[in-house]
Amino acid sequence: MIENQRPREIAAIDLGSNSFHMVVARIVGQSLQIISRHKQRVHLASGLDAHQNLDQAAIQRGLNCLAMFAERLQGFEPENVRIAATYTLRQAQNAHVFLKRAESLIPYPIEIIPGTEEGRLIYLGVAHTQPENGRKLVVDIGGGSTELIIGEDFDTHLVYSKHMGCVSYDQQFFPKDKISAKSMAAAKLAAEQKLESIASKYRKKGWQYAVGSSGTIKAIREVLIGMGCADGIITGKRLCQLTDKILEFKNAQDLNFQGLSDDRKPVFAAGVAILSAVFNSLEIEQMTYSDGALREGLLYEMEDRFRHSDIRTRTADAMAAQYHVDMEQANRVKNTAEMLYNQIEPQPGLAKSELSTLLGWGALLHEVGLSITYPGFHRHSAYLLRYSTMPGFNLEQQTVLATLVRFQRKSLKLEEMPELNIYKRKHLYPLIRTLRLAVALNGQRTDDPLPQIKVKADKEDWLLSLPKDWENNNKLLAADLRQEQEYWAKAGWGLNIK
Amino acid sequence: MIENQRPREIAAIDLGSNSFHMVVARIVGQSLQIISRHKQRVHLASGLDAHQNLDQAAIQRGLNCLAMFAERLQGFEPENVRIAATYTLRQAQNAHVFLKRAESLIPYPIEIIPGTEEGRLIYLGVAHTQPENGRKLVVDIGGGSTELIIGEDFDTHLVYSKHMGCVSYDQQFFPKDKISAKSMAAAKLAAEQKLESIASKYRKKGWQYAVGSSGTIKAIREVLIGMGCADGIITGKRLCQLTDKILEFKNAQDLNFQGLSDDRKPVFAAGVAILSAVFNSLEIEQMTYSDGALREGLLYEMEDRFRHSDIRTRTADAMAAQYHVDMEQANRVKNTAEMLYNQIEPQPGLAKSELSTLLGWGALLHEVGLSITYPGFHRHSAYLLRYSTMPGFNLEQQTVLATLVRFQRKSLKLEEMPELNIYKRKHLYPLIRTLRLAVALNGQRTDDPLPQIKVKADKEDWLLSLPKDWENNNKLLAADLRQEQEYWAKAGWGLNIK
Repeated sequence: MIENQRPREIAAIDLGSNSFHMVVARIVGQSLQIISRHKQRVHLASGLDAHQNLDQAAIQRGLNCLAMFAERLQGFEPENVRIAATYTLRQAQNAHVFLKRAESLIPYPIEIIPGTEEGRLIYLGVAHTQPENGRKLVVDIGGGSTELIIGEDFDTHLVYSKHMGCVSYDQQFFPKDKISAKSMAAAKLAAEQKLESIASKYRKKGWQYAVGSSGTIKAIREVLIGMGCADGIITGKRLCQLTDKILEFKNAQDLNFQGLSDDRKPVFAAGVAILSAVFNSLEIEQMTYSDGALREGLLYEMEDRFRHSDIRTRTADAMAAQYHVDMEQANRVKNTAEMLYNQIEPQPGLAKSELSTLLGWGALLHEVGLSITYPGFHRHSAYLLRYSTMPGFNLEQQTVLATLVRFQRKSLKLEEMPELNIYKRKHLYPLIRTLRLAVALNGQRTDDPLPQIKVKADKEDWLLSLPKDWENNNKLLAADLRQEQEYWAKAGWGLNIK
Repeated sequence: MIENQRPREIAAIDLGSNSFHMVVARIVGQSLQIISRHKQRVHLASGLDAHQNLDQAAIQRGLNCLAMFAERLQGFEPENVRIAATYTLRQAQNAHVFLKRAESLIPYPIEIIPGTEEGRLIYLGVAHTQPENGRKLVVDIGGGSTELIIGEDFDTHLVYSKHMGCVSYDQQFFPKDKISAKSMAAAKLAAEQKLESIASKYRKKGWQYAVGSSGTIKAIREVLIGMGCADGIITGKRLCQLTDKILEFKNAQDLNFQGLSDDRKPVFAAGVAILSAVFNSLEIEQMTYSDGALREGLLYEMEDRFRHSDIRTRTADAMAAQYHVDMEQANRVKNTAEMLYNQIEPQPGLAKSELSTLLGWGALLHEVGLSITYPGFHRHSAYLLRYSTMPGFNLEQQTVLATLVRFQRKSLKLEEMPELNIYKRKHLYPLIRTLRLAVALNGQRTDDPLPQIKVKADKEDWLLSLPKDWENNNKLLAADLRQEQEYWAKAGWGLNIK
């Protein structure tokens, strides 16, 4: 195999609640070489109103930044760019407005990732950039959420994402930049309440190294260095001293610490309160800072997906095991589905390989809901795939899987189908049709060979061709396919069988 | 211990889709002695319209029968009577109308049981009344549903309930009592489609004895005996012969078989079609008939609950294991909940012991949803408890458990609470309050002893008394309880703490 002349360049963008970050890297041999970093503070979280709607100004700040990043990425192939959005876009009721307008500015899909997925990627970013081996606790305090992860090597053991961040806590406890001992104590106690239910798990699991990542902890580290702690190590005692220093001021704008930027001032006290609570609840002795964070995690995983295995395969396999999926049947359905889908012309806009991969996972997991109960199990499968923690999947992909298994059988109530941003109906319909046919064709759950089947798609109408006389030897299958024709017809889809 | 002079009498009533049955038994020493059986054909299923509403005439037929049964039960204590409703009342949109009107006629709660629970109880009824040991397949074709169970001794291995019965298939395939070869074939094929997805599981599991129960199979057996098959054994070949005999007639009213009652005639062909499909799909060689059925299952389980263990305990334990519940925490919450609930005056109408038992299971299972994901896990717990197959629980009890765990934490959106028939809000509110307090008090998930707590309930207002100075040593708990006060206040509940 001949290597490309130019090393491949990949980029990751992280749409955070406080700042957007972009990092570009070059794959050189076996390693990633970071070649540029970009950061812009967009204060997205502060544009979220009481009804969880992003205001127009915040949307515009975000879009301006994305447009700027897009310039840098001209000529990048889609498979070399990943964009992940976190807390604020997870929460925003009108996130679709942002995503819709972003589409025309930057030609790469924006994935909204669940909190646990954010935690896993942060851990990956830290694990790849820290020299120490051994079990690590990673803490990342963002604008809207705080992730706490314990992992070893590149595997995570505990991942939680909590709804507390320096921007949201600033708004809640330090309105108008006012600082007081009472508000510091209230913010810290609130954070301890958030951590209460998980703290004992973390203490029990334990770690060798506690590492902080991202802006909040970086700022605290730099202020501590400015205060004379040259080693930059964060300890509980130093946090207490820092709190005392902060309380010498009445207003955040007046904080004049060496190492603290003007931008960071308004949210600094909230960040210190949250970190102090984390130290207290988890009984952390000391913490160092790591430059690796979410965007590095995205980069390393992108590289990994090409080189090695897709973490999503491991997730799907683990889930099939957890819910005691009948793997023989799952594989029969998967094989039939792939056989059929390969005969279909892809719809433009998304890579067929990605759609086919999702179809494969959908087939593998279509019966997870059986472990709850048989009646309506397709809905239970959908529930589990929609809500479970699924490392490697973003929210849309989970919704795609949930949608596929939801519509694997019974009537096609397409009005119940969610509207997605990246995966359009034109992409999903062929996947649903294929999975349904694969399920129907394997209805008898035996290894008896299927008749040879050809499929041709003409928009909403599909034509199945089966060998002569197949119906005589497959009465039950014929009845199932007739039933399937009725379901399709009610949804306005044609299914011709000859 | 002195034995009661009079042996205890217990009664079970089964509200089926075709007939209502009552059986009364006496507990003599270690065994049950059936002392009377009552049956009335009410044709409930035929009163179900296209929108799944029971018409007034059907409701009245059912109520008349219940009133008659009630006369026989005068003087029976509530714990000695169990009434279970099956398919038609499960399906009926207006089942609550029937249940409401039944309340004034018969002073015992009517439980609507899930199909799998019906199957389990049928199996129990058969297992207790059949002499053979070894693995059994039990088939019960009712008016609206068919249950298929494989079990050994008193344990079930496979239980499915399928939406097909002699009344519903009669309406669908034999309208106006018309019989034809085409409609027999169509009914049989439809039944085979229903069985398709589970047939291979049953064949794989296998059995030593196939046993049929209830009216449909009883009638088939009696007609076969009338045709000269003196041993009363049902075989595939005999079913074919019977089908041929049926097809000599064009109208069900004309069927003049020895052993076939006029009442059974309209639904006989549909029953034969379904049983033929069951024989075909499961590859049954021969089947005998057992007198034991749902009502006997109810009776034996009633006796068992008093004498031995409650199957529900086994179900709850199995579920806790399946979803990897943290048993230490579950037991802490359970113990605290029971300690608090014991201090509360019971609300009239239901046995406090039953409510306390439900609270215990709710506490044991309140975190099952964590196995899906942490955010909103109380909703996931509720989903699992609402929809899972849970042997021993009826639909209302599952809904009670789901409701308890749904409201274990976070805001009390009581408008989302379902209205139940047996368990009223006045019963559920104290359980919810108790579970919430138990969860809050054990928020730190440690074995550190709790401060001593006294609770006093005054309608919607509760008073918690804690030792002096407890707050100084329990700042986090105090914050949690203050938060809890706010949640209660928004629901119009008072929580005073001193």
